[in-house]
Amino acid sequence: MTPELVEMLSSVVAPGHVLADADLKASYETDWTGRFKGSASAVLRPGDAQQVAEVLRVCNEAAVAVVAQGGNTGLVGGSIPRDSAVLLSLRRLDQLEAVDEISGQVTVGAGLTLARLQDHVRASGFDFGVDIAARDSATIGGMIATNAGGTRVLRYGHMRAQVVGIEAVLADGSLISRMSGLLKDNSGYDLAGLLVGSEGTLGVVTAARLRLVPLLTKRVTALLGLDDLGAALSVVARLRSELASLDSVEVFFEPGLELVREHMRLPAPFREPHGCYLLVECASRRNPLEELGSALSAAEEVQDSAVATDGPDRERLWAYREHHTAAINAAGVPHKLDISLPVERMTSFAERVEAEVTKTIPGSRVILFGHAADGNLHVNVLGPEADDERVADAVFRLVAEHDGSISAEHGIGVAKAPWLSLTRSEADIAAMRAIKRALDPKGILNPGVIFPTAPAVASQPGEASS
Amino acid sequence: MTPELVEMLSSVVAPGHVLADADLKASYETDWTGRFKGSASAVLRPGDAQQVAEVLRVCNEAAVAVVAQGGNTGLVGGSIPRDSAVLLSLRRLDQLEAVDEISGQVTVGAGLTLARLQDHVRASGFDFGVDIAARDSATIGGMIATNAGGTRVLRYGHMRAQVVGIEAVLADGSLISRMSGLLKDNSGYDLAGLLVGSEGTLGVVTAARLRLVPLLTKRVTALLGLDDLGAALSVVARLRSELASLDSVEVFFEPGLELVREHMRLPAPFREPHGCYLLVECASRRNPLEELGSALSAAEEVQDSAVATDGPDRERLWAYREHHTAAINAAGVPHKLDISLPVERMTSFAERVEAEVTKTIPGSRVILFGHAADGNLHVNVLGPEADDERVADAVFRLVAEHDGSISAEHGIGVAKAPWLSLTRSEADIAAMRAIKRALDPKGILNPGVIFPTAPAVASQPGEASS
Repeated sequence: MTPELVEMLSSVVAPGHVLADADLKASYETDWTGRFKGSASAVLRPGDAQQVAEVLRVCNEAAVAVVAQGGNTGLVGGSIPRDSAVLLSLRRLDQLEAVDEISGQVTVGAGLTLARLQDHVRASGFDFGVDIAARDSATIGGMIATNAGGTRVLRYGHMRAQVVGIEAVLADGSLISRMSGLLKDNSGYDLAGLLVGSEGTLGVVTAARLRLVPLLTKRVTALLGLDDLGAALSVVARLRSELASLDSVEVFFEPGLELVREHMRLPAPFREPHGCYLLVECASRRNPLEELGSALSAAEEVQDSAVATDGPDRERLWAYREHHTAAINAAGVPHKLDISLPVERMTSFAERVEAEVTKTIPGSRVILFGHAADGNLHVNVLGPEADDERVADAVFRLVAEHDGSISAEHGIGVAKAPWLSLTRSEADIAAMRAIKRALDPKGILNPGVIFPTAPAVASQPGEASS
Repeated sequence: MTPELVEMLSSVVAPGHVLADADLKASYETDWTGRFKGSASAVLRPGDAQQVAEVLRVCNEAAVAVVAQGGNTGLVGGSIPRDSAVLLSLRRLDQLEAVDEISGQVTVGAGLTLARLQDHVRASGFDFGVDIAARDSATIGGMIATNAGGTRVLRYGHMRAQVVGIEAVLADGSLISRMSGLLKDNSGYDLAGLLVGSEGTLGVVTAARLRLVPLLTKRVTALLGLDDLGAALSVVARLRSELASLDSVEVFFEPGLELVREHMRLPAPFREPHGCYLLVECASRRNPLEELGSALSAAEEVQDSAVATDGPDRERLWAYREHHTAAINAAGVPHKLDISLPVERMTSFAERVEAEVTKTIPGSRVILFGHAADGNLHVNVLGPEADDERVADAVFRLVAEHDGSISAEHGIGVAKAPWLSLTRSEADIAAMRAIKRALDPKGILNPGVIFPTAPAVASQPGEASS
């Protein structure tokens, strides 16, 4: 980046918000897992959408790559600057408007964290439909860019389903905005929906109008022991059809439970171990205990069950599921692969995945857990060579064989880009590339993310992402 | 169209399914309201997606415009052929797969009618989340192309929210397909979501994977009399926050009720007339009567109410809302304008709309009804010059002043294209045009729809839609 450009950008965002010093830039250049490292020519911290627009206009003119970043909690390297791109941190865009109680909506800045959004709307008797573990750092803008999922997708849908309107800046600096909270609007293409999940490659989200859901305080949690995943999925189908109050259905297995118990020094949940466990939570305006109880008593597949209604008891049950990530990390450096499958093919995948991985890298261990109702499994591979690309390759090929997706929740980022064509067809990718070129002809927005071969933007500005 | 082209297309779809005779073409060239008339050079009735792909490939090569049509129940002229375009009828693509009970999904052809889909899935204990009055003719493909809404959007969302996967043919004949029913899939752009509501301008939908909802047979219907729309919207906000079983909240007013009563010879629903009426329906697995009753008894704004639980009584209440369209048509040829507003601005719009219309065309009458919870009003203008474009202009300008949308459910079509820029910004429209050019460079797909100035495709193939 030329000194003239730095000066120009400084005048846009104010000098104190242009970080060029290596120490100050560092936390923006590495992801929280430490797996992805990069370098930014500068870190810009714009204070409003107009500054974002002006930054993009200047960078587009100069054909300089821009990587947008929210809470930097991604898992696929999608917000780490590469090849001295400009890093655009959106965290200062954290405005928070009053909850609109008539429409059940709220308007917030892209830089607001999920936890602050939750606190804000819960004070008005509402809740937000998506919840993820990274809530204290993850920003709404980042969650939109990656179409975040989490434990309540089965009830409320993913992030795309929560977005009523978006304000965003396109590559050329033009601002698109549709924030009046219309629930029905069939006037042309759904640009907001297209930007959700586009991982910073089509535009930079600066604010959003979000739909809210009722705050449900009456909660019941159950841990179920089952023979295997097949039995568990039968129970899931039954619970889905019978329980309007169903909020979460998480799945894990004996090897993961053992790691968690060891790491957290927890007692066994049941006298006998089981092949598969479901962690079920119901929430409603009235106590959902009776409803859940009667559904469970009719489910013959359930071998063991523990049900909790008060906070501490519920937390004790959730602990078996929630500490999976920490327990796996304590056991080694895992290769974490987030995938999804048609629900009816989960069993076949789960039965075969460890064999496929160990065929390639003998001695690997595979720990599975995930969101059962969504067909979403987090595949964690442990072992001396877990980080080997051949592990990802083996898992993704098995996913493709099962008509699944190589990314359920986390996005493609740079980590999965080489495998995109495994589960998206040539025609799909051609259409995506055409849209990318249409909205970002110089390819300045997050080059290297999503698409298999990254264009060398800065050096060959004419070539774009073709 | 040259004889060579006709022959080529005949060999693709089989001669019996190429209609060139004026009598045979007629029903495809006029919409059901009689407002939109056009002419097709030929009507093609392909039998599968491969034939659709081949037709588009041939037409794209020859730069011949193609208009896709489903049940031809649209209201904005979006599926009527213009300037001798090829009319592609999708009705033969009516395949229907078995309901996947584990995932709660079904795969169907684009030409299947909504009524046939409903019959099919209800036999398995499921229902479809969108319902519209045109169910016997409207096809799933057409409903996807227009992002159909209807009475249950507040509970299940519009058509886009029901689509898990789409199979579609793009302008160049390439087939995109993502039909394995994945509930979470963050591998690149949401092409399916982009095609929903694109009104045949970006691709031709040939099949869809649809999410189903539980079939809820326990239903309670209530008709409420209220002083005005403001009071009604307070009740709507209360019902939304208190009733998980809320299925529909329809609104209408005394002038519409009078027309309906006269037309259908119905008794008055209450002893005294009211300024505004709400038709509320709840549905759940258990009887929602108690839940609805307790919510209504706490709503002070309700002046009068009638509640029905059995079929015939519920139908009697629905009749006051459902016969609005027929009663209005009987009173004259209405100008029907479907618009949406932020919920909190509906009252101001409703109070002013008749004055704005009569300012332009004195003597006009405005009958309003719609979907209260969605901010969606159907504006029906009656009078000697109701069809005058100035009526639409007056209504749409008032919509724009209230931050609304000139199309809630019906789409833009050709009817509303001249006003698109009233409620979509220049940057929005530029981005939409860029996407259109990217996926349909020759502008063969439904030219004249959505965008204000139509390209003359066949005569100037190089100019596309720029």
